[in-house]
Amino acid sequence: MEPEKNSCHCIEVCFSPKLFPEILTRDNYVVVLVDILRATTTICTAFENGVKEILPVATLEEAKALKEKGFLVASEQDGIKLDFADFGNSAFSFTRDRVEGKTLVYCTTNGTRALEMAKDSGQVVIGAFINISALTQWLVDKNKNVVILCSGWKKKFCIEDTLFAGALSARLLESRLFKSNCDSTAVSVDLWNLAKPDVLQYIEKAAHRHRLKKLGLDDVIPYSFLEDKTKVVPVFDGKTIKLTPNT
Amino acid sequence: MEPEKNSCHCIEVCFSPKLFPEILTRDNYVVVLVDILRATTTICTAFENGVKEILPVATLEEAKALKEKGFLVASEQDGIKLDFADFGNSAFSFTRDRVEGKTLVYCTTNGTRALEMAKDSGQVVIGAFINISALTQWLVDKNKNVVILCSGWKKKFCIEDTLFAGALSARLLESRLFKSNCDSTAVSVDLWNLAKPDVLQYIEKAAHRHRLKKLGLDDVIPYSFLEDKTKVVPVFDGKTIKLTPNT
Repeated sequence: MEPEKNSCHCIEVCFSPKLFPEILTRDNYVVVLVDILRATTTICTAFENGVKEILPVATLEEAKALKEKGFLVASEQDGIKLDFADFGNSAFSFTRDRVEGKTLVYCTTNGTRALEMAKDSGQVVIGAFINISALTQWLVDKNKNVVILCSGWKKKFCIEDTLFAGALSARLLESRLFKSNCDSTAVSVDLWNLAKPDVLQYIEKAAHRHRLKKLGLDDVIPYSFLEDKTKVVPVFDGKTIKLTPNT
Repeated sequence: MEPEKNSCHCIEVCFSPKLFPEILTRDNYVVVLVDILRATTTICTAFENGVKEILPVATLEEAKALKEKGFLVASEQDGIKLDFADFGNSAFSFTRDRVEGKTLVYCTTNGTRALEMAKDSGQVVIGAFINISALTQWLVDKNKNVVILCSGWKKKFCIEDTLFAGALSARLLESRLFKSNCDSTAVSVDLWNLAKPDVLQYIEKAAHRHRLKKLGLDDVIPYSFLEDKTKVVPVFDGKTIKLTPNT
């Protein structure tokens, strides 16, 4: 059956932060930020393990300055943890004993920049496979249009974020509370349907999977595609990322 | 069998002119410009019907000024032919009796702007399903890296250009003279494989197909997905589009 189009909210998928200024959804929307390998997966993991709040910063200079002020800092460039930092962006290093109750400064190649870009649009929520069901329910309750913003790799299209956009869009469309007339949403759903019987096999095609492998940083990949390892829904309010009150 | 990677040239697909500055292919490349609905299909048709050369312009003001100087002008906005122009961008209006031997000024929403952007990179070649085999052979002979630049719709990702990028990439990869390690190429090929059993059915998903239908401009769609209706390979040298000497 066709969804009831008049009462539905829209889903729009944006394949790169560079395309974000071109989105057609102009009002009453929430942005889902996606960087599956690895920032948004890692942020959800840190909240699952009790981090109090995350302060995203866009430059190394800011990250270093806050480190000197005594903050815990996560910072990587092209996947590699930087010397001065306490963490890179492997989800596995954000363990409960290291992060619980703490404020964390987070600077990454892709994720933070996309967050900075999206924040002027109002609320930004953090999406990953590991929180997909909780996020879907949060978006249904939110009752707004949804723009899924893929961080991509160096601002380019990337497979892993697109698969998540497809998985999330498919769930939202199934609720019949959302519709889409955007080509990138349709294609994301098709790619997700193609990939989902064996996602880890499919992402062998992803260039970034090979970059991480080369760096010995690919141990986190299977985890990054597991669904519902957490119920946290972290939200960025323009300054810090915190849990929403009901999570 | 794996292609012989060391001797291969690269294919990179760019889903929008906005992403063109981010391409990773930095030297020795040719750009394939794609705007299946409808600019590049139309340009190939005009050359098949004997047009002498096409002068692309980016603004309406330029198009109007050249019309006043006596040129034949094609100009549309959001699919609609503009009043002052001789043609919109329906391939079917560029008949032999109207274009043979003529110089044509061409101003379109998507195509011309992408052409302007790509021209600083060297040679730009016009790609469409209707010239796909001739184009493939031309690229094989050219012996350079290939960037497939999708015009998109209002700078956004669009399905029809992506399917062409997939169809062309699949042919080039099959030649084993090309390789790709770009996520957008891999995804384009997958989408093409998904769509090719019934392309016209698949592009029912494309938003622009519905825009054209609403405007009564969708008569050209089946033609736009036919392969090898022409052997022309039009090339943009930075000023005008002409046929290459060997076509």
